Amino acid sequence: MQSHEKGYFTEANSVDVVTGRNASAKDERLKEVMEVITRKLHEAVKELEPTQDEWMQAILFLTRTGQMCNEWRQEFILLSDVLGVSMLVDAINNRKPSGASESTVLGPFHVADAPELPMGANICLDSKGEDMVIEGRILDTEGKPIANAVIDVWQANDEGFYDVQQKGIQPDFNLRGVFKTGSDGHYWFRAVKPKYYPIPDDGPVGQLLGNLGRHPYRPAHLHYIVSADGFETLTTHIFDPDDPYIHSDAVFGVKESLLAKFNKVNDPARAKSYEFADGFWDVTHNFVLARRKD
Amino acid sequence: MQSHEKGYFTEANSVDVVTGRNASAKDERLKEVMEVITRKLHEAVKELEPTQDEWMQAILFLTRTGQMCNEWRQEFILLSDVLGVSMLVDAINNRKPSGASESTVLGPFHVADAPELPMGANICLDSKGEDMVIEGRILDTEGKPIANAVIDVWQANDEGFYDVQQKGIQPDFNLRGVFKTGSDGHYWFRAVKPKYYPIPDDGPVGQLLGNLGRHPYRPAHLHYIVSADGFETLTTHIFDPDDPYIHSDAVFGVKESLLAKFNKVNDPARAKSYEFADGFWDVTHNFVLARRKD
Repeated sequence: MQSHEKGYFTEANSVDVVTGRNASAKDERLKEVMEVITRKLHEAVKELEPTQDEWMQAILFLTRTGQMCNEWRQEFILLSDVLGVSMLVDAINNRKPSGASESTVLGPFHVADAPELPMGANICLDSKGEDMVIEGRILDTEGKPIANAVIDVWQANDEGFYDVQQKGIQPDFNLRGVFKTGSDGHYWFRAVKPKYYPIPDDGPVGQLLGNLGRHPYRPAHLHYIVSADGFETLTTHIFDPDDPYIHSDAVFGVKESLLAKFNKVNDPARAKSYEFADGFWDVTHNFVLARRKD
Repeated sequence: MQSHEKGYFTEANSVDVVTGRNASAKDERLKEVMEVITRKLHEAVKELEPTQDEWMQAILFLTRTGQMCNEWRQEFILLSDVLGVSMLVDAINNRKPSGASESTVLGPFHVADAPELPMGANICLDSKGEDMVIEGRILDTEGKPIANAVIDVWQANDEGFYDVQQKGIQPDFNLRGVFKTGSDGHYWFRAVKPKYYPIPDDGPVGQLLGNLGRHPYRPAHLHYIVSADGFETLTTHIFDPDDPYIHSDAVFGVKESLLAKFNKVNDPARAKSYEFADGFWDVTHNFVLARRKD
């Protein structure tokens, strides 16, 4: 009698034998997930033919990754990020109709209770960095302005740190704000030019990046969550296209459509109108929301 | 300009963009491993189209799995075991020439310094369980006996526990021993009939098995490592084919060729010759070693 007939595991039937055990799974989706994961995992093992030592290295890498996690650090999300999995999940869950603005990853630094500010407010509370003014419109896919759209923005400072990473150094809610559009769909606020920064690279994921000859940097960006009644919420960034890491974001968050020109302006009258001392950065970026389907 | 031309990440080019970053990897094998893992991971994500919530559930499952590991517990090895990955790696690394005995997983309970015992010794040190005598021959693929073969055996007791799991309850080195063959290649020793037992199922892997409707049991078996000069070392088990879990080993370790008939014998004269009180189990199993290639 062949092993296959008895249902014993062999190299040839490995996927069928393992997934065949899940016939009584409590949940059809879990069964489907484990079928695909088992199949792809076995395909990878069969293609790579790891030695026992390589297998053990993989086990220990995953173990270290789990053990690096705590209340403040999620090393498996970092691993997902640097392997492009987070961006892939984001892309799959945010396929937009033609003309709508594209999404990118939320990231770990969003804060739910940032203050709502009057349009034009300066979200930089410590006067550190190069002044910047940002404006644009929130539009529907026909180009019509959306009134009462809520724009939640947050960004790193000019040293590449978010307020929550530097409690006691930066003021609370530094470089965060929530704005609401009027009938013209227009938004504007003042801030400072953000800087590129590394993802946390003192753990197993940073070590992997190093061994792969990869740097840990994300190019400079601002985060946006734009929402409005009747429209799908948009979670995205805008990026500085002149950033040294714009073509090599460690987490693959950059999209062509998310590049926003950062123009250096030397115009004393405009600077004065914004209460800026001198030259400043000027950014214009519109966002187009997709209408909710249901 | 297309995103692709700039090298930005899209659903379509995700694998190429991520693996393209590894051009300067320090190690060609690592580069190859990450290429295959990234590709299979992205294939799985594209096939499953996980929601953000499902992705987070996967992140948290891996995190809990890492955090369950300690000096005594390796939950990622358990995960590898129950997904058939450990057996697949074992199979790939132990393809045997025709006629040689098949391998199976080492498992976590081998002890390096078990005592060498005289042939025929009883490895059961606490007289608990049903008596058993095991014998057989160590042969080459031409059927010739191998002299000076070393046979390292270990097993669970009749309650399904290894000595190292019950320190202070079982004597040290209970149900373990090392034997060396003479010129006839023959081995024999006395023991007790082992019992099925669960893999540790109080962690995330046990919870996954439960959700998949799977039990955590391994069918009753004895572990063997058989080695001899000039031959490839064989790490394997023999199984009781009448065990209730023989067709559903939680870690997929059973192979047709590793089934060893466990015969119940009621023969007072033979029992007395083994110093057994009464009826006993009689097992005969030969092992065939493959000649080392180099």
